[in-house]
Amino acid sequence: MKKPNIAVLGATGVVGRHILEIMQNMHIEYENLKLLSSAKSAGTKMTVNGREYTLEEAKPESFDDVNIVLASAGASTSKLFAPEIVKRGGVLIDNSSAFRMEKDVPLVIVGMNDEDLKNHKGIISNPNCSTSQLILALKPLHELAKIKRMIVTTYQSVSGAGLAAINELKENTKAKLENKDFTPVKFVQPIAFNVIPQIDSFTENGYTKEEMKVVNETKKIMHLDSDVQISCTAARVPVFVSHSEAVDVEFVENISVVEARNALSNSFGVTVVDDIDNMKFPTAIQAEGKDPVYVGRIRQNLAFGNKGLSFWCVGDNLRIGAALNTVRICKRVTEMELF
Amino acid sequence: MKKPNIAVLGATGVVGRHILEIMQNMHIEYENLKLLSSAKSAGTKMTVNGREYTLEEAKPESFDDVNIVLASAGASTSKLFAPEIVKRGGVLIDNSSAFRMEKDVPLVIVGMNDEDLKNHKGIISNPNCSTSQLILALKPLHELAKIKRMIVTTYQSVSGAGLAAINELKENTKAKLENKDFTPVKFVQPIAFNVIPQIDSFTENGYTKEEMKVVNETKKIMHLDSDVQISCTAARVPVFVSHSEAVDVEFVENISVVEARNALSNSFGVTVVDDIDNMKFPTAIQAEGKDPVYVGRIRQNLAFGNKGLSFWCVGDNLRIGAALNTVRICKRVTEMELF
Repeated sequence: MKKPNIAVLGATGVVGRHILEIMQNMHIEYENLKLLSSAKSAGTKMTVNGREYTLEEAKPESFDDVNIVLASAGASTSKLFAPEIVKRGGVLIDNSSAFRMEKDVPLVIVGMNDEDLKNHKGIISNPNCSTSQLILALKPLHELAKIKRMIVTTYQSVSGAGLAAINELKENTKAKLENKDFTPVKFVQPIAFNVIPQIDSFTENGYTKEEMKVVNETKKIMHLDSDVQISCTAARVPVFVSHSEAVDVEFVENISVVEARNALSNSFGVTVVDDIDNMKFPTAIQAEGKDPVYVGRIRQNLAFGNKGLSFWCVGDNLRIGAALNTVRICKRVTEMELF
Repeated sequence: MKKPNIAVLGATGVVGRHILEIMQNMHIEYENLKLLSSAKSAGTKMTVNGREYTLEEAKPESFDDVNIVLASAGASTSKLFAPEIVKRGGVLIDNSSAFRMEKDVPLVIVGMNDEDLKNHKGIISNPNCSTSQLILALKPLHELAKIKRMIVTTYQSVSGAGLAAINELKENTKAKLENKDFTPVKFVQPIAFNVIPQIDSFTENGYTKEEMKVVNETKKIMHLDSDVQISCTAARVPVFVSHSEAVDVEFVENISVVEARNALSNSFGVTVVDDIDNMKFPTAIQAEGKDPVYVGRIRQNLAFGNKGLSFWCVGDNLRIGAALNTVRICKRVTEMELF
C-alpha cells in the first residue's frame, strides 16, 4: 500500500492535538508528516511517534508534495488553503463547515457512507460533531425501518467551542462557587450552572446554524429523500467534553425496541448501554476519551406509536465528533488509494 | 371574605421555605397560621410576617380547625395525613405526586384551569414542576390551534431533588475542579459537568416516572382528547435552580410564529424573551427567583411543517414549578370560598 505524505493543519488546537494522538493510536502510516499552524503557533515543538516536530506556519508552498491534509483550523483557513492543496494534487480532509454542503464534496462518516469518498474532487468534509454521533446511531435504524421524521435535542459540551470555552466554564464555575462576579466572553451568557439555547449564529428561519447543520448534514450523509422532516434544538450545557442527544424518530415501517437494540448492538462504532433495571444509561463523562457512540434509553416513542423510537446518544465531541472520524477518513482514503 | 386557618406542612424544606416567602409577598390573609414538620425538625423557629413560630411535629390532631393545608413533605407524608385533613373538613393543597392522577382530585395550574378547583373533595394537587411551566406556555397556543402531538425534552436543575442534591452538585463540582475523587449519593452518577438522562424511577414502557408525569398531567390539566400523543425525555443537568425545556408541538390547525408570540405575550404568567437578532432568549439563571415562565426561540418546526412550532421555556422549578402555584391555589380557593 502506498504511504501518503500527511500534513496536519491546526495541530495545536484542541482537535488538532486529538488528531495527532489518534493517528498514533491507530498506527496511521505515512511517508512524511508535517505539522502546520498559524504564524502565532509556528515554532512550537510537538512530539509524534517519538519524533519531535517544529510547527511551521501554513503557506501555499507548505502543501508541495503533501498527499493528505487533515485540517482543523477553522472555516476561513480551510477556504484559504483548499485551492492551494487541490492545485498541488493533495486531498484536504476538512473539519470545518466551509465545504460540507457543497455538491462535489463528500461528507463522510467512516463505516456509514465510505462509498461517497470515491466522488471526491480534492476535498472531503468531516461532519459537525452533533451530526456525527447521531448518524452512527441512526443509520442502522434507518436500514431497518426508514426514517420519516426526526426531532433531535442536544446537550452540548463547551469543548466544541475550543480551549477558551473550556477555560471560561472553569473560571465561571469557580467564580460562582465563590460568589464572585464573572463576565462571560466566549458565551453570550454565563455558562456555569446554566443552559444556553444557542450555538453559533441564527439563520432566517429562527434555527441556529448548529441546528441546521444537524438537519442538512444528516440528509446529505444518509442520502435521505427530500420529504424526510428533521428538526433540531441545540443547547450548550456546563459540561467539558461529550455531547448528549435526545432523539425522537418516526419511521416509515414498524420497528420494535428489541429490533433496534439488536441492530445497534451489532453496528460499527456504537456501544449500547441500556439496562434501566440496573440504572444503566450513557452519560457525558463516561464517553469522554472513548471512541464509541453510546446509545441507551431505547424505547417506543409515545408520540409516534409503533413506528416511533426514542433514544439517548452520547459521544466524545472531540473524538467521534471531530478528530477520530477525520483520522478514520484519512485511513480509508489511504486504503482505497484515493489520494 | 372569610379568612382561613392555614397550616404549612414541610415548612423547613426547600419548597416549604419558598411557600412561606411567597405567602408573605402575595399578602395571603389567614386567621391562624401553623407550621408543621417531621419530628426531626420540630422545635425549629421560623419568622413569618414578623411573628416567630415554633414548628410542631405533624400529627392527626394538628389539623383540628385547619381549613387549608399547604403540603410539601413528600408523597408518603401526604398519603398519611390526607384522610385526617379531609375528615376534619380541611382542604389539602398537595405538592407531591400522591394524588395527582386520581379522578376526584383537581390538578390545577392557576390561570389555566381554575374551574376544576370547584370539583375538589378535600384534596387539590399541584402539578409536577416540569409540567407546570410547560402548561403556562402551552395553553394559549392550544387555544389558538389545538395540540395534536408534542415532544418535550427537559434540562432539569438539581433543586427539584431537594437540599441534599443542591449540596451534592456543589461538592461534586468542587471535587472535580480540584481533581479529587467524589462518590455520588443523591444521583446515580456524578452530576458535576455531566448530564444524567434519568429522573425518578423507570416505568414498564421504558419512560421514567418524571417523563410520564409530563405526559399524563398535561393531558389531565388541559383536558386533552385521548388521541393527543405526547412524549418526553427528562434529563438532569448541573444547574442549581430553574428547568429549561425544548418543546416541539404539532397542532391540528395552522399556526404562525407571529400568532404564537402575540398569544404568549398576552398570556397570564408568561414573559416572552425572544429577540434572536440581539441574542435574547431565556436561560435558567435568569429565571431563578422570578415568577413568570419565560418563553423564547419560537419558530416554525421543520418536522411538522405549517402546523408545527418549537419553543424554549424556562421557569424557576421551586416557584412556578412548586411553591408559587401552591400559594396561588390557596389564594383562589380562598377567593372562590372553596374551603
